[in-house]
Amino acid sequence: MSFLDLHHRDAPLVLPNAWDHASAAILLRAGFPAIGTTSLGVAAARGVRDASGAGREATQSLAASLRRLPCPISVDVEDGYSEQPDAVAGFAAELGVAGINLEDSSGGALVEPALHAAKVAAVKERCPDLFVNARVDTYWLGQHATVRETVTRALTYLDAGADGVFVPGDLELADLATICAEVPAPVNALASVRHPVPALAEVGVRRVSTGSLLYRAALQQCLQTAIAVRDGERAPAVVSYAEVDGLATD
Amino acid sequence: MSFLDLHHRDAPLVLPNAWDHASAAILLRAGFPAIGTTSLGVAAARGVRDASGAGREATQSLAASLRRLPCPISVDVEDGYSEQPDAVAGFAAELGVAGINLEDSSGGALVEPALHAAKVAAVKERCPDLFVNARVDTYWLGQHATVRETVTRALTYLDAGADGVFVPGDLELADLATICAEVPAPVNALASVRHPVPALAEVGVRRVSTGSLLYRAALQQCLQTAIAVRDGERAPAVVSYAEVDGLATD
Repeated sequence: MSFLDLHHRDAPLVLPNAWDHASAAILLRAGFPAIGTTSLGVAAARGVRDASGAGREATQSLAASLRRLPCPISVDVEDGYSEQPDAVAGFAAELGVAGINLEDSSGGALVEPALHAAKVAAVKERCPDLFVNARVDTYWLGQHATVRETVTRALTYLDAGADGVFVPGDLELADLATICAEVPAPVNALASVRHPVPALAEVGVRRVSTGSLLYRAALQQCLQTAIAVRDGERAPAVVSYAEVDGLATD
Repeated sequence: MSFLDLHHRDAPLVLPNAWDHASAAILLRAGFPAIGTTSLGVAAARGVRDASGAGREATQSLAASLRRLPCPISVDVEDGYSEQPDAVAGFAAELGVAGINLEDSSGGALVEPALHAAKVAAVKERCPDLFVNARVDTYWLGQHATVRETVTRALTYLDAGADGVFVPGDLELADLATICAEVPAPVNALASVRHPVPALAEVGVRRVSTGSLLYRAALQQCLQTAIAVRDGERAPAVVSYAEVDGLATD
């Protein structure tokens, strides 16, 4: 089943976002049909900030590793690491994956929709089969966070060739419902602390991705486990050394 | 307090092993006085096998990132990625960290103690202030897994200049007690599913490291969280995006 087709089944596509090879491989083994990446996780793993462009090389090398896995891979490429649509298209083409997320903000500020649309168009011209998920950062950044502005941006990106629209942020279900109704392409929402997947599905969301959640949950578990050991508890029995080593593809 | 001094306080040094920058930074923030690395985590994150040598470059780049943190860092360098003592010493010197773990096996087989001792000696000659933790892999690999062979190897490495001895594996407390009694340097054990830190301390262990535990616990939590979301649960509230992004040092 193609990555595009996964957006058109009865239930929404739940796309878990990995930060490295083993986290992707263990999710794939558990039955997830496609795997995404988290730019926060990739950046933080290298000690650099998300959405700063500093994660560019790490994103490339992660994509090179993940594309060896037998499933569609969608890579979070922040804003494409350039203001030049051709450069963004070149970067996307070299990833060799099934999809990308491309966000319409840079360094914490929304960019002009026309610039983002030009990036989307350049990528689709170079890679017609790449699923381009155009991210609208209105709610994420709390800038022009209205249904109207969000839908206007989404339609602009669809006109430029985007295959889907991603609206991250803590939206009300009613707002998501309106966005889904007015956007004629799969709408992607973040897994939410308020709305479980069935509620998101109910309002028309076609993809639910976990964003940075899995990396943040992993870091928290790392910390809790270390503190428990320090405080005198026995080490917990978790996935074994051999299982993790067996996730390698080399 | 120097990394060496941390092995000579009342309680053993509990050294948590990180696999990337953010996992190290969040452990440091929680009060751990020094941070180690896990070669399994570093390798698996890149999709390659532990103890295969394929994690060499990833280990270098992680060390370059972690040495910016304001605490002693000890890096797991497998077998030093070479059979040439001078090459191992050169690799260790370039890391620029407070300590290394150097194991006396390659590709799953114990090496001759004389070869390992030569590596230890070369590293200490080049880097007299580097804490060299000589790992004895008898119990880890289940090869010559006796107290006698383990102590003999440990003493050989101490003669060559090692600062401490690491005996990973699922040892009986009585065996650890004998090893600690016969080895005149800090003995490092793994955090255990059977023996909590106070029990290890009781038999003389001076350092308890978590090995790959934190990475494995992190992967398991990643998986469980993704499955919970897929199965219709709300996303859990964990460490926030801003907190994780704030762990960056660039």
